Amino acid sequence: MERKPTGIIGLDEMLDGGFLPETANLVEGAPGTGKTTLGLQFIYSGITVQQEPGLVLTFEEFPQQYYRDAAGMGWDLPALEAANKLRVIMTSPEVTQADLRQVGGLLETHVREIGAQRILVDSISHFERLNRDRIDLRESVYGFVNGLKRLGLTAVLTRESTTLLGGDPNIGQDIAFVVDSYILLRYVEIDSAMRRALLVLKQRGADHARDIRQYEITAAGIDVRARFEGRQGIMSGTPTLRMVEAFEGAFGRSRPQS
Amino acid sequence: MERKPTGIIGLDEMLDGGFLPETANLVEGAPGTGKTTLGLQFIYSGITVQQEPGLVLTFEEFPQQYYRDAAGMGWDLPALEAANKLRVIMTSPEVTQADLRQVGGLLETHVREIGAQRILVDSISHFERLNRDRIDLRESVYGFVNGLKRLGLTAVLTRESTTLLGGDPNIGQDIAFVVDSYILLRYVEIDSAMRRALLVLKQRGADHARDIRQYEITAAGIDVRARFEGRQGIMSGTPTLRMVEAFEGAFGRSRPQS
Amino acid sequence: MERKPTGIIGLDEMLDGGFLPETANLVEGAPGTGKTTLGLQFIYSGITVQQEPGLVLTFEEFPQQYYRDAAGMGWDLPALEAANKLRVIMTSPEVTQADLRQVGGLLETHVREIGAQRILVDSISHFERLNRDRIDLRESVYGFVNGLKRLGLTAVLTRESTTLLGGDPNIGQDIAFVVDSYILLRYVEIDSAMRRALLVLKQRGADHARDIRQYEITAAGIDVRARFEGRQGIMSGTPTLRMVEAFEGAFGRSRPQS
Amino acid sequence: MERKPTGIIGLDEMLDGGFLPETANLVEGAPGTGKTTLGLQFIYSGITVQQEPGLVLTFEEFPQQYYRDAAGMGWDLPALEAANKLRVIMTSPEVTQADLRQVGGLLETHVREIGAQRILVDSISHFERLNRDRIDLRESVYGFVNGLKRLGLTAVLTRESTTLLGGDPNIGQDIAFVVDSYILLRYVEIDSAMRRALLVLKQRGADHARDIRQYEITAAGIDVRARFEGRQGIMSGTPTLRMVEAFEGAFGRSRPQS
Amino acid sequence: MERKPTGIIGLDEMLDGGFLPETANLVEGAPGTGKTTLGLQFIYSGITVQQEPGLVLTFEEFPQQYYRDAAGMGWDLPALEAANKLRVIMTSPEVTQADLRQVGGLLETHVREIGAQRILVDSISHFERLNRDRIDLRESVYGFVNGLKRLGLTAVLTRESTTLLGGDPNIGQDIAFVVDSYILLRYVEIDSAMRRALLVLKQRGADHARDIRQYEITAAGIDVRARFEGRQGIMSGTPTLRMVEAFEGAFGRSRPQS
Amino acid sequence: MERKPTGIIGLDEMLDGGFLPETANLVEGAPGTGKTTLGLQFIYSGITVQQEPGLVLTFEEFPQQYYRDAAGMGWDLPALEAANKLRVIMTSPEVTQADLRQVGGLLETHVREIGAQRILVDSISHFERLNRDRIDLRESVYGFVNGLKRLGLTAVLTRESTTLLGGDPNIGQDIAFVVDSYILLRYVEIDSAMRRALLVLKQRGADHARDIRQYEITAAGIDVRARFEGRQGIMSGTPTLRMVEAFEGAFGRSRPQS
Repeated sequence: MERKPTGIIGLDEMLDGGFLPETANLVEGAPGTGKTTLGLQFIYSGITVQQEPGLVLTFEEFPQQYYRDAAGMGWDLPALEAANKLRVIMTSPEVTQADLRQVGGLLETHVREIGAQRILVDSISHFERLNRDRIDLRESVYGFVNGLKRLGLTAVLTRESTTLLGGDPNIGQDIAFVVDSYILLRYVEIDSAMRRALLVLKQRGADHARDIRQYEITAAGIDVRARFEGRQGIMSGTPTLRMVEAFEGAFGRSRPQS
Repeated sequence: MERKPTGIIGLDEMLDGGFLPETANLVEGAPGTGKTTLGLQFIYSGITVQQEPGLVLTFEEFPQQYYRDAAGMGWDLPALEAANKLRVIMTSPEVTQADLRQVGGLLETHVREIGAQRILVDSISHFERLNRDRIDLRESVYGFVNGLKRLGLTAVLTRESTTLLGGDPNIGQDIAFVVDSYILLRYVEIDSAMRRALLVLKQRGADHARDIRQYEITAAGIDVRARFEGRQGIMSGTPTLRMVEAFEGAFGRSRPQS
Repeated sequence: MERKPTGIIGLDEMLDGGFLPETANLVEGAPGTGKTTLGLQFIYSGITVQQEPGLVLTFEEFPQQYYRDAAGMGWDLPALEAANKLRVIMTSPEVTQADLRQVGGLLETHVREIGAQRILVDSISHFERLNRDRIDLRESVYGFVNGLKRLGLTAVLTRESTTLLGGDPNIGQDIAFVVDSYILLRYVEIDSAMRRALLVLKQRGADHARDIRQYEITAAGIDVRARFEGRQGIMSGTPTLRMVEAFEGAFGRSRPQS
Repeated sequence: MERKPTGIIGLDEMLDGGFLPETANLVEGAPGTGKTTLGLQFIYSGITVQQEPGLVLTFEEFPQQYYRDAAGMGWDLPALEAANKLRVIMTSPEVTQADLRQVGGLLETHVREIGAQRILVDSISHFERLNRDRIDLRESVYGFVNGLKRLGLTAVLTRESTTLLGGDPNIGQDIAFVVDSYILLRYVEIDSAMRRALLVLKQRGADHARDIRQYEITAAGIDVRARFEGRQGIMSGTPTLRMVEAFEGAFGRSRPQS
Repeated sequence: MERKPTGIIGLDEMLDGGFLPETANLVEGAPGTGKTTLGLQFIYSGITVQQEPGLVLTFEEFPQQYYRDAAGMGWDLPALEAANKLRVIMTSPEVTQADLRQVGGLLETHVREIGAQRILVDSISHFERLNRDRIDLRESVYGFVNGLKRLGLTAVLTRESTTLLGGDPNIGQDIAFVVDSYILLRYVEIDSAMRRALLVLKQRGADHARDIRQYEITAAGIDVRARFEGRQGIMSGTPTLRMVEAFEGAFGRSRPQS
Repeated sequence: MERKPTGIIGLDEMLDGGFLPETANLVEGAPGTGKTTLGLQFIYSGITVQQEPGLVLTFEEFPQQYYRDAAGMGWDLPALEAANKLRVIMTSPEVTQADLRQVGGLLETHVREIGAQRILVDSISHFERLNRDRIDLRESVYGFVNGLKRLGLTAVLTRESTTLLGGDPNIGQDIAFVVDSYILLRYVEIDSAMRRALLVLKQRGADHARDIRQYEITAAGIDVRARFEGRQGIMSGTPTLRMVEAFEGAFGRSRPQS
């Protein structure tokens, strides 16, 4: 099956190659978990490795902020814009929503002009400004997502987490039900430090890894690493050592191997 | 007693053969737990194994999405539709509700035309759009369910979970009280990975297994496997090793067998 | 003291013989815990063993549903109705409440005509439709309960639990304060399966067992069994092994007996 | 200092002799914890042992219910009423509140006619019908309590708990701040049974025991027994064995005595 | 730096000598934790030891109640009032707030007439009657506190806790942010009894002890004692034995000293 | 990359040199955690070590309070104001917000007149007075932050925590998403005392330490120390000893070194 690699090796492995084409993929995390970095890497890698031009749709930050953030990882966004392979568009949810309802709207024009195949929407949480009711929000996001698919785009939608350190959110009428995949970025406290965990919870129509992996935000972007070992309750944010490991830690690995 | 097998071997075992005829069966889960897959398997297997034509009622997704999802498991829905054994109907809760109140409505026509005996309603959570009050919602769903039974249908109703990782939901005036069976699909974190758990909590008028089973979403549909072993608190989503197993893990199984 | 046995041997033991005459007895549980079965057994056993005719008052389900459910346990309700020892009455909370305020109302007529001494009200939770405020609800239920007592009835009132797996509910102005006894049915996860627990929390004017017992819903009705052993936190729904038992499980019962 | 013994030996010990004269004493518990029994014992013992006539003010239950409940413990309330040493008065919070505002009101008349020195108010929770706002409720209860003190009464006010099994309630603007003593009755799950715990949390102007005691509701009233041993988290409702006791339970008391 | 000793030896040690002059000091606790006693001791000791006259501002209780409470500890408040060194003023938050806005108000007159340097405000929670919105409440309390400082007063403000047994309160816009010091009084369950814990959480502009100390309410006032030993989670209200202590309790202190 | 050191050695290490220029940096803590001290140190050290004049914007406390607080650490703010290197400005969120919308506003004048490069905003929580809706608050703070950046300022924004002892706050539409870095100050109960923990959760565009460090508020300002050792759940406020350390504490470090 055709895939849209994210350019993040470990994540592509977990996704069995990448996102499916023309899908909406939700990436959710608390402040500082690297949602935007992950999304930019998907766009940047799409352009430079897959030859798939891309769009970045931002509802709050100025394009300059993205240029700076990307530059920190050696990604020259202005150059890609000059080469007509990227457009960073600052707009509002209101305009975006109205635009997708008409033929030949602005977004469609952008897509056509650079042949965009990928889009980063940063962040879908701003749609809450338009729709403070959860059911309305869901309908609105669903319409938006379908508009993107009609334009042939594969999308990363970032979303801001509603809990800082791992509580279980209320997901009644959640937009996670209308997207094609759902990736969680979480803080995990281990040994008096905050590590980061990545989990692919859902991928519609394809297999995916189900382990909870550590990752780092490096000078080259998101770096997905091994799964956590010997801990339980990772997604709660405050895991504990499993007792087996605790005993080994205390007494050494002297037990008979079964 | 006559049964309507779901076509999922492990689940049919748990249900002592399948659902009872002309019942409404609630299947609840978070995003990515395979609610729709389970429902489609019930319909597909009904048509192809039991020779019972079926309907799929969808309130959000387009039929094409179901075709694609089913194709991934080797189930050719368009062919079944062409053979007049299946209808995938996209509609709204409003229309559906009004329709069931009249004799010879649209749904009744569909049932008559293909001789449908099964229906998948995906998802009943969309009735919340009509009824934001829980008591109203319950009355509305109850009326809908009775309408389906009057048409001779055995129904799977999917429902979206309101907690992501296993919290205990408020079930005041819950629709789980008006359905005939209630199946829970849950995420369970074990050894730094997300596994899935299936539990039959209720089956009116018949016995059922009460163990919490692991399951996988495979290329052939839902595959129900063994129960979990040596863990407590599975339905909380973050189970812990029981201490007996923890000691055995640390010291080996050297203890005298009692 | 005179007693009204429920016909469930283990429960009658726990209640020191059964309910007191002319009392209102609350039976609360989540979906699938067997509230209605317990209530029907109280009515059926009253008629067939104690020669006390009975009424079933239902606010949602059709009488046919009760016939079917009872038939599954070998209880022939239509025959009892034909013999004028039972009436299954489908009505609404509104009608019931108005009816009890007048002399010679409908319910009184039913009671007189068959000499009813017992009643199952299934479920009192439907009174929330009339009274969405907790204080109003309490007054309404209290008036209803007194009306039943004036008619000489001993009542089982089922109530739907507001938590699925054992959370601690808010009981401010709860109707449990105005009934004569209060029985809790709860799910308990043990060894990767859902067991059921029964507890008599309150019995006004009489002694009762205070242990938490296991029970099964069998083809002959509710079967109350032994108490749970070696677990703590049962009413939380996710009990843990006590450490004493955990050590014994791991090392065998080799410790000196103190 | 003069005391008003409750007649419950263990409780009087804990209170260092009993309640202080002309105080308001709050007794709080969930359904079935024996709040009313405790209050009746205070009244009955006052009359029969201390020669202090008493009143019972009830806002919901009929006097007959109190006669029955008391009879179960061998207390003949009608006889005491006939001897002009007791009055059981059914009224409403509205009437009571208005009454206390005037000189020579009804309550004052009752007090004068039988020389009442004690009163049981069952339950103060019914004042919530008058005042649904917490600040209003507090002012209202405070005024009521002062009215009782002006009449020279020592009062037990029962209150219904807002949690069933031991959660930590919100006590913002709670009436516990305006009473003179505060006694908690709680359920405690131990060894698969529900025991009951009693705690004196506060006694204004006097010392009191601070241990959490077990108690039983016997055929002779409330019987306060020893404190709990070897458990932690009793007031949470689901205590755990302390590890010291757990080890001793597993290995016997062979350890060197330090 | 000049200090205002509270007269409670252990607390003055913790505060490095006492409160700073012209500061507002918040003392928070559940019913029965001795907030008012602590405040009275600050006033009484100020008058009798430091020769600093003081005021007691009460919004609910009558002065007689304070006289009685103080008498129980051997403190003769009426005598101090007669000597013009103390005034116990019963008023309302409304009057107080209005009063502080004008020059030469009533409070200022009291301060001038007896040369008051200290004040106990019992309790600041009554300001919630004026301001049910948290932001308004904060502004109101802040204005009040500044008024007290303008009068040269060092203040103890008691506050009623919103949790009974140690839950973590919401402190959004809390008045704890506008006071100079913040002392918590908490219940702690240990060995089946309720002990009391005192913690100085904040002292603006000065050092303070950070340990959690036990205290008793004795016939001589508040008595602050040693810190708790060998327990974790004290401020949660239900601490547990640390495992080190648990092992020692079980096996004795035979381990090699490291 | 250019940095703006905070003057707190341990924190600058954690931030890899300090804040990035022209960024908004959120410092959040409960009462008494030293938010303002940290912010003042950033300003004072900026002026005295980096020769970067600074502003302090206060919405509640008077400048005199800052002078006093700073004096306690040996920082002479009035002298710096006299030297035209500092301005402490008391204003309101309303005025500030309006001011930043115009060219040549008051804040801009202050910046120009002393060449300010740094600003402490104490606290951003006061913007909630203007915007009680979270989405409005976020937009307002975002506009404010951009205004500061346009003036070339590097900002510390203090924020009041909404939990006292470590609960997980709701961060839906939180302003932490729009700032450049996010520092958490938390209370941690260890060995019956309250310690303080500091964590850098996010730093946009730069690396940062992820460990949770202890810190003290000393007579010389904030002093960041080593990370916590051997505890889990630090950010919950009530950490527990890890079992490895617990065993070592009990049995000594006799285990074979693996």
